[in-house]
Amino acid sequence: MDRVAAYLRQHQQEHLDWLIDLCRIPSISTKPEHKGDVAAAVRWTRDLLARLGFDARVCETGGHPLVYAERCAHAGAPTYLVYGHADVQPEGDLRLWDAGPFDPVVKDGKLICRGAADDKGQFLVHVRAAAAWLEVEKRLPINLKFLIEGEEEISSPHLVPFIQQHTDLLRCDHILVSDTGMYADGWPTITYGTRGLLYKEIRLTGPKHDLHSGGFGGTIANPANVLAKLIATLHDADGRVSIPGFYDDVTELPPAEREQLRGLPLDDVQYAAGLGSPRVCGEPGFSTNERRWTRPTLDVNGIYGGYAGEGANTILPARAGAKVSMRLVPNQGGEKLSAQFDQTIRARCPDTVRLEILDHGVCDAYVAPLDSTPLHAARRALRESFDREPALIRAGGTLPILPAFKRVLGADSLLLGFAGPDCAAHGPNENAVLEDLDRGAAAVARLYGYLAP
Amino acid sequence: MDRVAAYLRQHQQEHLDWLIDLCRIPSISTKPEHKGDVAAAVRWTRDLLARLGFDARVCETGGHPLVYAERCAHAGAPTYLVYGHADVQPEGDLRLWDAGPFDPVVKDGKLICRGAADDKGQFLVHVRAAAAWLEVEKRLPINLKFLIEGEEEISSPHLVPFIQQHTDLLRCDHILVSDTGMYADGWPTITYGTRGLLYKEIRLTGPKHDLHSGGFGGTIANPANVLAKLIATLHDADGRVSIPGFYDDVTELPPAEREQLRGLPLDDVQYAAGLGSPRVCGEPGFSTNERRWTRPTLDVNGIYGGYAGEGANTILPARAGAKVSMRLVPNQGGEKLSAQFDQTIRARCPDTVRLEILDHGVCDAYVAPLDSTPLHAARRALRESFDREPALIRAGGTLPILPAFKRVLGADSLLLGFAGPDCAAHGPNENAVLEDLDRGAAAVARLYGYLAP
Repeated sequence: MDRVAAYLRQHQQEHLDWLIDLCRIPSISTKPEHKGDVAAAVRWTRDLLARLGFDARVCETGGHPLVYAERCAHAGAPTYLVYGHADVQPEGDLRLWDAGPFDPVVKDGKLICRGAADDKGQFLVHVRAAAAWLEVEKRLPINLKFLIEGEEEISSPHLVPFIQQHTDLLRCDHILVSDTGMYADGWPTITYGTRGLLYKEIRLTGPKHDLHSGGFGGTIANPANVLAKLIATLHDADGRVSIPGFYDDVTELPPAEREQLRGLPLDDVQYAAGLGSPRVCGEPGFSTNERRWTRPTLDVNGIYGGYAGEGANTILPARAGAKVSMRLVPNQGGEKLSAQFDQTIRARCPDTVRLEILDHGVCDAYVAPLDSTPLHAARRALRESFDREPALIRAGGTLPILPAFKRVLGADSLLLGFAGPDCAAHGPNENAVLEDLDRGAAAVARLYGYLAP
Repeated sequence: MDRVAAYLRQHQQEHLDWLIDLCRIPSISTKPEHKGDVAAAVRWTRDLLARLGFDARVCETGGHPLVYAERCAHAGAPTYLVYGHADVQPEGDLRLWDAGPFDPVVKDGKLICRGAADDKGQFLVHVRAAAAWLEVEKRLPINLKFLIEGEEEISSPHLVPFIQQHTDLLRCDHILVSDTGMYADGWPTITYGTRGLLYKEIRLTGPKHDLHSGGFGGTIANPANVLAKLIATLHDADGRVSIPGFYDDVTELPPAEREQLRGLPLDDVQYAAGLGSPRVCGEPGFSTNERRWTRPTLDVNGIYGGYAGEGANTILPARAGAKVSMRLVPNQGGEKLSAQFDQTIRARCPDTVRLEILDHGVCDAYVAPLDSTPLHAARRALRESFDREPALIRAGGTLPILPAFKRVLGADSLLLGFAGPDCAAHGPNENAVLEDLDRGAAAVARLYGYLAP
């Protein structure tokens, strides 16, 4: 174990170079023009795993491809499946980035680029741990499988069918995932629950083209004004989501868990200041951690319509739209709420505009058992590598694959997060703290050892 | 008079070539990168007027330049000042244009390009009429001045100071403007009133950069959600503007004028269908013509924030904003409402986001006398050239210069509109009907004759 750890220390630069190479590939799965880049990132991952001694292959899925790799030498040992993703979010507004999103920069001990934290830097922690075992011991202590996909950021449309068609190949005792965050700087963190997601787009059309707002204003509906009214109906004055039935299936948190979450340090003033927001707010009666991890929400992710350039353009826009997503909690059925959302919007939209509702994905929440063998082993490995008792938290984000793994393979997931609290995943200047990735690789290498029979 | 008319008929193609030349210049005054193009359009106009025999010059204003030209040979004759503008609106969404906005195309008797109707095609009607008189009679029947500016589409910020500094130069008995529309295809139209404009931009800032909507949704305010709520408060359920005091200074229309406006044919179903809108709507208790010409309105001209590309991006946006403009009617003070708008928005905006309000222009409404000599002469000239009694209407749009001419020069304005009802000013595929421009030039040539002492 010590030699494995030493190897990882000695090869930090080499492993950083792997990550930089991979982050240079703009594998944005949501944009059709980056289709080839997603495939390139998947091939890059396959090549690395093959070089390390895994039986690795690229698998087509009908959408973006994925990598499957395995090294299962021990008949009696447990089998772990590492899940991660090689695709990334769009770069967003380039003016908000200090450097190109796909030109990785190391600064102040951080790697800054799209994918540094979500998820290229994190899934490579497992590859690095495996590489160290294989280089030092010429074997892995457990059976290990990798499933690195290219569609996580578009809600993994082809992954569940792939898993359903390859249940034998993917059979395992437990899933390992590193695609979550650390509760605080340098604080190793196990995430045992994620929220679900229901993502919609509302599109309103008024006149057939943009009109002169002087010539026509006041005579027909303005889609942007109607859109604002419609969006405004989605929250009540208190900040609760105003879709009929939205909270019907939400269960109360067990008192012990509520207690434990409230025990995690969080200063609302510092939290808001750190994000640059004037103050925290949201659904009344819940702490900030409860709101972001255990309560459902509704957010406009984007809104558009008419002239958004400099200065003034006096048009009555032909179209306006909004991307609206809801985060769901355990027991809230995504499909049921999807229908409820559509019905609500249709009922509230006036007949002065034409309405179209697009679906951009739906996924249920997931909560893992808190008393499993892998969880105990992970707490120990993290404690030893980071010199600190790990935090046990839930996450506000969504990992669509977790409920699917449970459903199709019957396997629960262990989420070890190495993204810092300021990692800016999905935003500009996404980054990863290199020391956290290094300690993470050491912790995962230990974990593999502790999981051996 | 007949020879002048004949000359115009014989030179239609030459005059169309003038217009096409001018429309090739992308003189978008709102975009800094087109500054040189606005100046080029102004120089082009100066050169044409000089060639025709006017004393023409380009004048700097501190912003975009303008053209002043005059030919005032008759000591005893009245002096008319033709006002127009050589700048244009932005092109908007290029995908909605059938051809390049600055690549003029003639199709089905129409010239299609930005500026064809607003206002290059229209001010050239006066230049064509003057050219015909000068070529045929070697003189003009009246004293004629031209003032063609480059900042109309950005609310003419430097024109009023220019007029104030050049009252002697610009002294005149009446203003002539062609920058309005025709009530119906081929129906010559005199516009005797315009609405004012108050243009604002609301900008909301939440977190310092876009955040992961899963990780942070539900804990701080989402600027796009707050913006929608804010915009939604600006109209009540009936469609009236909900800014305190907004209607306080609005005067009732005189019964005779209301009667006359209601006498103009307008089929609401056809009107909406022509625009591609499901149906008319707006402030209750007023006809469509009353709403668009004589009632104040509030429209979102653009709304933006977060991700507006294809597919899904799960961010909580750092910023959101809306361009909001109000059309004002006579007696509504723009400056007073500007302060009222700001105060209302500030009072309604929650402290969970940061608010900034930008000013993009303010201008009062204008109504001309209905019994002036030039108006009667224009009715006759239009009737003879178009074989139809002209319509007398108001316009919903804004000509910032009209109230300024009245205030500074003491001169009223006569508005002769030659833009067709489907001209799509400010929108994609802006166009002008060539026959209307040709008959317009003939009518204006007659008008000059009738205005002679």
